[in-house]
Formats: sequence, C-alpha cells, structure tokens
Amino acid sequence: MTRRLSLFGATGSVGQSTLDLVRRDGEAWSVGVLTANSDVAELAKLAREFRPDVAVIADETRHGELVEALAGTGIAAAAGADALVEAAQRPADLVMAAIVGIAGLAPTMAAIEAGTDVALANKESLVSAGELMTAAARKSGATILPVDSEHNAIFQCLAGGRIDQVRRIILTASGGPFRTMSGDDMARVTPAQAVAHPNWSMGAKISVDSATMMNKGLELIEAHHLFPVGLDRIEILVHPQSVIHSLVEYIDCSTLAQLGSPDMRIPISSALAWPQRMATPCAPLDLAGIARLDFQAPDEVRFPATALCRAAIAEGGARPAQLNAANEVAVAAFLAGRISFPAIVDTVRRVIDGQPPMVPTSLHDIFSVDASSRAAAQLLVDQYEHA
Amino acid sequence: MTRRLSLFGATGSVGQSTLDLVRRDGEAWSVGVLTANSDVAELAKLAREFRPDVAVIADETRHGELVEALAGTGIAAAAGADALVEAAQRPADLVMAAIVGIAGLAPTMAAIEAGTDVALANKESLVSAGELMTAAARKSGATILPVDSEHNAIFQCLAGGRIDQVRRIILTASGGPFRTMSGDDMARVTPAQAVAHPNWSMGAKISVDSATMMNKGLELIEAHHLFPVGLDRIEILVHPQSVIHSLVEYIDCSTLAQLGSPDMRIPISSALAWPQRMATPCAPLDLAGIARLDFQAPDEVRFPATALCRAAIAEGGARPAQLNAANEVAVAAFLAGRISFPAIVDTVRRVIDGQPPMVPTSLHDIFSVDASSRAAAQLLVDQYEHA
Repeated sequence: MTRRLSLFGATGSVGQSTLDLVRRDGEAWSVGVLTANSDVAELAKLAREFRPDVAVIADETRHGELVEALAGTGIAAAAGADALVEAAQRPADLVMAAIVGIAGLAPTMAAIEAGTDVALANKESLVSAGELMTAAARKSGATILPVDSEHNAIFQCLAGGRIDQVRRIILTASGGPFRTMSGDDMARVTPAQAVAHPNWSMGAKISVDSATMMNKGLELIEAHHLFPVGLDRIEILVHPQSVIHSLVEYIDCSTLAQLGSPDMRIPISSALAWPQRMATPCAPLDLAGIARLDFQAPDEVRFPATALCRAAIAEGGARPAQLNAANEVAVAAFLAGRISFPAIVDTVRRVIDGQPPMVPTSLHDIFSVDASSRAAAQLLVDQYEHA
Repeated sequence: MTRRLSLFGATGSVGQSTLDLVRRDGEAWSVGVLTANSDVAELAKLAREFRPDVAVIADETRHGELVEALAGTGIAAAAGADALVEAAQRPADLVMAAIVGIAGLAPTMAAIEAGTDVALANKESLVSAGELMTAAARKSGATILPVDSEHNAIFQCLAGGRIDQVRRIILTASGGPFRTMSGDDMARVTPAQAVAHPNWSMGAKISVDSATMMNKGLELIEAHHLFPVGLDRIEILVHPQSVIHSLVEYIDCSTLAQLGSPDMRIPISSALAWPQRMATPCAPLDLAGIARLDFQAPDEVRFPATALCRAAIAEGGARPAQLNAANEVAVAAFLAGRISFPAIVDTVRRVIDGQPPMVPTSLHDIFSVDASSRAAAQLLVDQYEHA
C-alpha cells in the first residue's frame, strides 16, 4: 500500500536523507508536499523528481521564481508562512517535520491538529511549545514519532513496553569536542573548533550546541515532553563514541538500548516505517571493529547548559521557549566571532533571569516570547561585544 | 489477579532466585508445584513456606522421607520421574523449568504439550530436543520464555519487533577466564581456574562450559531453536564485561540491546511477569561507574567449541543431543581431574564423529542418543586417562 508523505524542509539534511530513503522504496510512497526555506532551484528539482501536489517556498519573495521553475509540471507553487500551514493541513499518512528552528512550529502544529502522524525532526518546536504540541496530539490522536537519534532510540526501547514501568530514561551525549578541555581553555575556543563534531556531520548551529552540551539540554526538554516519566527519571550519560543512542531502564532493572552507526537515515527510516521497519543502505554496526565504548557522568560545572535546561523545564511555562530563543541568538553571535564560547550559556542564563515567567497558551504567545527573548539576547550580545 | 506457578528445580540457583521474587510479590502468585532432585529437607522447608498442592522429589528412594517431612501439612508428596511429568501436566499459568540437565526434558515437554507457558532455564532440554520442543509449542500454543540471560535479552529486544525483520542476532560471550590465554597454557589449566568465572557466580559445570566457550555454542543452538532467523544470522561477539546480554539488529540497521547487572533475578523476573514487568530488588546498571565496555571477535582456533556447535546444529537431527551428552561427561571428567582442559572439546568432537547421524522423533529417541553418547564419551575419557 502506498503511503502519502508531506515533507517540510526538503532541502535540508534530514529532508535529503528522507528523500534518499523514499527514492529507494518508491513503490511504498507518494509525496504530497515538498517545502524549502529559500532554495528555489533545489526545491524545483526535487519537485520534478517526486511530483508532489504542491511545492511551497517559505520565502514569500521567491514565489515568482518557483512558479516559473515549475511551469508546465502541473505542480502547484505556493509561498509564505500561511502556505506552509495550509500544506500541513493537507491529508497525509505522515508529515516529516524537518524545518529547522522556530519556523517549523506553525506547520508542525497544523499537522498535529489535523490528526496526522508527525515524524518530528524539528527540535525547536517541541522545546518551545512542547506542552501545546503534546496536548494537541492527545486531542487529535496524532502520533509524534521522534527523529532525533536519541529520542528515536528511546521510542524504540519503549516499543512493547509501558511507560509506567520505566524506571529511568538515559540520554547519551557524546560530550562534544571539548569534553576533556579545561574551563580556562574553553574560554579561547574558536568557531572552527566548535563545529568539528567528533561523531556526526551536522550543521554549524547544532554542532555548537553539542559543544556547549546545550543540545543535550534541549533533548532533555524534548524527552520530558515525549516520554512523561517525570523529569527526575531522565538522566544524561556521557558516551564519547555515540554508538548507544540512548537507553531505557525498566522497573525490573532490565535496560534496553538502541545502537547504530552515525547515520540519520536509521532513525528517519524508523519513523517512516513505524510500526514496521524498512531496509536501509546504512552500515551495520561492527562492535568488534569499534572494540570499546566508554561512559562517564556529565560534568555540569564545565558544561552548565544541561542544568540550565533542567531548571527551565522544571519551572515550565515560557522558560524553555526563552532559553531556546536566547541560545539561537547567542550561538549565531559566537559563530560570527562576536562573543566567546562560555558567553553562549551565560547569555542564555541572563536572558532567562531577565524575562518574566509566564504560561503561553497559544502559538501567538510562543512567538511573542520567542521575539522578546531574541531581542533581550541581542542586547546582551551587543554589551559583551563592547565590554 | 493471582497467577499459578509450578516450579521445577526449586532448590537450585534459578529456583531459589525465582522463589525470592515470588516471596517479595506474594499477592501475585500461588505456587502449585515444587520439585527438587534429592534435597528433601530443603524441599520440605520451601513447601511449608509456599504451600504447593504437591511437592515432588526426583530421587524415588527418598519418597518416604518426603512423606514424613510433609506429614500434617496437607501437601501431597510424590517421587520419581513419572511424578515429575504428572506434576508438569497440572494446570498452571507458568511452569518454571529450572531442573539442570537432561532430567528436565520430560517434565518440560509435558508442560509444553499441556499448552502451559514455560519459563525455560533448562538449557540442555532445548539443546538436545529443540526441534521436538518447539514443534510441540507450536502445536499446543505454549509460549517458551527464555530465562538464560542472553536469550531473555534477545526475547526482550524482539518485543514489538518482527522476527522476519531481523538482520542479525548477536549473542554476547564473556570469553571466560581464559580469554587471553595461549593454547599452550590452556593445556595446563586446573578445574579451580576454570570454575572462577569473571562475571557471574555459577555452578561448576556451566563455569567450565563458559571457559571452553561450549556454553556459548550451546546457547547458539538454543537461539537457533528459539529465534528462527537462520543459523547464518546468529553471531557471537566477545564482550568481557557481560553488561550487554545480547543484541538484535533489524533490517534498517537499528540494533536493540538488553543490558543489566549480572543478577539472574532480572531475566527470571522478565519471564515471570511477561508481557508485563515486575519490580525487582536488583542493582540498577551504573554505566558511568562501569566506565568501559569492550568487544572483540571470537577466536575459534583457541576456542573451537562454538564452531563445533554451529556444525552440529547445521547438520541437525541427533547431533546437538550427542554433543550435549558428550560435553556433560567430558566436563565431569575434567572436574574430576581425569582429562585436560583441551580434551573436553576433543572428546565432544570425537563422540560426534563416531556416532551415527539420525533424526530423533520422540523423547525416547533423545534419551537413547543421550545414553549412547555418554557411554561413548566415557570410553574416550578412560582412554585419555590411561594414555
């Protein structure tokens, strides 16, 4: 049976990997929607290959270009934020939510509210609006299938299990490129050092998040929303080789783990094929070749981001959205050479401390928190730069 | 709801661990049957505590003792092989098959034929009569719940998955106490060295099997019967710490693993509570404390037992029963100081080479193969001793 896929963020890394899998198993899928942020040429090329009903470019100024690029194909060309939401409301068996950043929030929520199962690769939307999103999924009956390798691992370890029989969820963390570096040396690291992730090839933003361990903190927030076992039952374990993607310990002290090569097509395929599995062209795990796996407790003195995230989700309300927005601004400032590496997490902390607590009850609230937190972070960045 | 448990082999290690768990969760269980091989005093003590309908002592000469020990309790006292089979046919929600050795085969088969779910800790019965046993389970609808930590791990990793979507099953092996020893040095090891297992506290027989890696070979045969993915899809991986109890790799190259402390109550509880889980008093796994896990490919030159087992199950029929019987005799001879450590596996190989191939179609056939293989092994042992 052919399943219908709507793919949001087709030209990014997760989008390309998704289409690689769909391409290899063409009989199983028909693509209804393809979207991209601003790369009209690539979107049009993919649309000509996968023949969706509609292709959407988020950047409204490029609507004309897209219309032109798809002329004669019969594929509708749309543009802008509202068009993304409309596309997310179209009937589909699965929505792959792979837009990066807060821009993915509105279409992802629209798909969930329409009751469509969502493969969620858009971390920021769950971090910023996790309570609204999981409440909407409960109401509509949509299943959220996590694509992040750690959360997908947990999801797999919970298959056949019951969440009320979970004793602990253990999120593994590579520890990033500065795992063994002293705090003093970290004050002098460059953007080039920070984006060189030891295990995964990723974008600059998430590589820096991995280096600060903010990425693991954001994943802690995600895990809290996806797997409601209680915050004190979710732990972080540093595992430099990133072979074990996460673990679930049950009340009988039996622990299940999911392992794999560092290839995003593995968790993507898991979400695409769920509750079945599909063959992938990924490399099987060779544990004898890897020879050794290491583990250590996280050091929250040198890496304070995870404790900050834990406090933010414990306080709840707008805190995680404030944290996420401030972090995006601070990481961009670090990558631009404007602030130091330790100033990233300092900025986030200071934004949270300076913003009022509140409980967002709508996407509008979330966007407004996001905007004011970004502005506050920008001010702090300017102060650092001129300090 | 109270579930009814029949426990075969109550005074052994698995039996005691089972009763420890039942004792802690008394509301959940009523015990219908308790059996022991020859320890009347301990059996009577346990019977007075757990109040089964019937207690059976395998050694018929001790029937009178047991009757006397249970006088006035209202608990029926029985003895002998036929009484064990009759007890296995009594209605129960679960039979724990924890008799050691071929003596466990007849009652285990009787329970399976009666359609009762069996928690199987009796490795030898599955090795010797795996085809008869799994055929009987398919016919009666009984589920075989493996208690061996490796097979229980695989069983857990298959929950929620489909066996036709399995790419590989990876049985982990500690490698035993002689993992890094040269072949020459192995020729001189003593029984005391062989029974000192690095990770698990076990009986002498299974400790020697672990040292020769025959234990892993027997587990390969077990796994082949329990998880019919094809023999070439079952691999062995040496993992000295025995923290990962086994792994299942799916067609998408996602690998699930079960991990735990070396406490048999974990897999026993898994079988008892299946498809749910029950709390245990076991130590949670502390990976940060363990710090490091190692893996290496098995060395089938220094440890030829696993290849021998693979060949035996590939040929099928009576071969695994011949192998198991010869191994029991050879291990006993080694423990008695009559043959060298390398002579254990040599004896097994020579027994198999000297016995005719055949396909057993009944338990009677199995017992007859077992007896003739033991006799052949005994002859070889005598020759070694006088060589």
